[in-house]
Amino acid sequence: MAVGWFYLSVLALCSLGSMCILFTIYWMRYWHGGFAWDGSILMFNWHPVLMVTGMVVLYSAASLVYRLPQSWVGPRLPWKSGHAAMHLLAFLLTVLGLHAVFEFHNHAKIRNLYSLHSWLGITTVFLFACQWFLGFSVFLLPWASMWLRSLLKPIHVFFGASILSLAIASVISGINEKLFFSLKNGTKSYSNLPSEAVFANCAGMLVVVFGLLVLYILLASSWKRPEPGMQAEREALLHGGE
Amino acid sequence: MAVGWFYLSVLALCSLGSMCILFTIYWMRYWHGGFAWDGSILMFNWHPVLMVTGMVVLYSAASLVYRLPQSWVGPRLPWKSGHAAMHLLAFLLTVLGLHAVFEFHNHAKIRNLYSLHSWLGITTVFLFACQWFLGFSVFLLPWASMWLRSLLKPIHVFFGASILSLAIASVISGINEKLFFSLKNGTKSYSNLPSEAVFANCAGMLVVVFGLLVLYILLASSWKRPEPGMQAEREALLHGGE
Repeated sequence: MAVGWFYLSVLALCSLGSMCILFTIYWMRYWHGGFAWDGSILMFNWHPVLMVTGMVVLYSAASLVYRLPQSWVGPRLPWKSGHAAMHLLAFLLTVLGLHAVFEFHNHAKIRNLYSLHSWLGITTVFLFACQWFLGFSVFLLPWASMWLRSLLKPIHVFFGASILSLAIASVISGINEKLFFSLKNGTKSYSNLPSEAVFANCAGMLVVVFGLLVLYILLASSWKRPEPGMQAEREALLHGGE
Repeated sequence: MAVGWFYLSVLALCSLGSMCILFTIYWMRYWHGGFAWDGSILMFNWHPVLMVTGMVVLYSAASLVYRLPQSWVGPRLPWKSGHAAMHLLAFLLTVLGLHAVFEFHNHAKIRNLYSLHSWLGITTVFLFACQWFLGFSVFLLPWASMWLRSLLKPIHVFFGASILSLAIASVISGINEKLFFSLKNGTKSYSNLPSEAVFANCAGMLVVVFGLLVLYILLASSWKRPEPGMQAEREALLHGGE
């Protein structure tokens, strides 16, 4: 039964994650003319696609590595390295996504970083960078003591989930902002809910549903590697030691 | 030391929570003409104030009731009733906040519920209502078995934290949207970062910092009532039973 739920969740995650990316690509292709890497508005179109792919979907996949039962047994190092490498890839896509919007702004002489969406987004990416470097230094490099690692682990997990939540809030405010920019006049105004508005709103709600499912598996599910410390304590108690 | 951290956190929470409310009131009074309850734009001004007060600050206070050490000993019923009553008050303020924006829209012939902000916001309030009724039925009314309660408790805690996260995402997209509406022209455009824009962006970032602190105390801190079940299991193990 538990195994059934697990594979159902993996299926739901893969489907929802792919749909988040495909919806964003379709939105940018069908209503905004597709993609280019030339400083034009078509370069901006990479921004939502790369942020949703890197900062939401790939970030989530990287975070969930330790929830795979295969990671619960055997040496931890390969899983840790995979976790770090996938997050690094997610971070690189995120930086490309930022570059796309900055380049477009610079070419079009639009000011950078004025909206609350941009303030929250850049804070989220900054926290992601800190989290990656701290995680790499403490959990992957061999110098840190077990004491330091177990002290920092709950904080690492908490900030991992928080950064995903902030990324989702950034995505929501970003989609909202983009629709107010692009749907302004007459029957095509946002408030008349033309097909683009309905489609992009649905994309935003999909990102929310995907994020909630990821956070549930990350924080509240029982699919976690059993802690060796807890196992030892339990055995010590059973055998009369304390 | 732990007690010192606890009271420092309470102080930080009270200060940040008050600042979130005061910043929102000041924004609406100083830049948007204050408040009325007459269907005009001044009625809309209640919307951000009531949502931040009800759906973020009071909701958080209600959620954190069980983190007070005073709640860890003695009968649970008074604390449960307080938790439910505070959440009910938060919900009532939220409904008033929704009424304020719907009334303004209806008077001004503006369509309701078209932006992603509104879709996410109304979903959040709907989840809050479900969470309250389910919590009341299962945890406060006496019919539910301990088995059902312990099955639903992690889900209740997870959705409690999720609803707060969604409320914060709604607040961020709402502030962003309001600033694009009200700052449109010339030197007063949002992209020129006039004083209102800086102030309201800061209010949004304050809400984020407050929310993260609440979620940390809720999910990752050790200030939780010890589980009677765990205590019993531990004692059973110590005394040789299983």
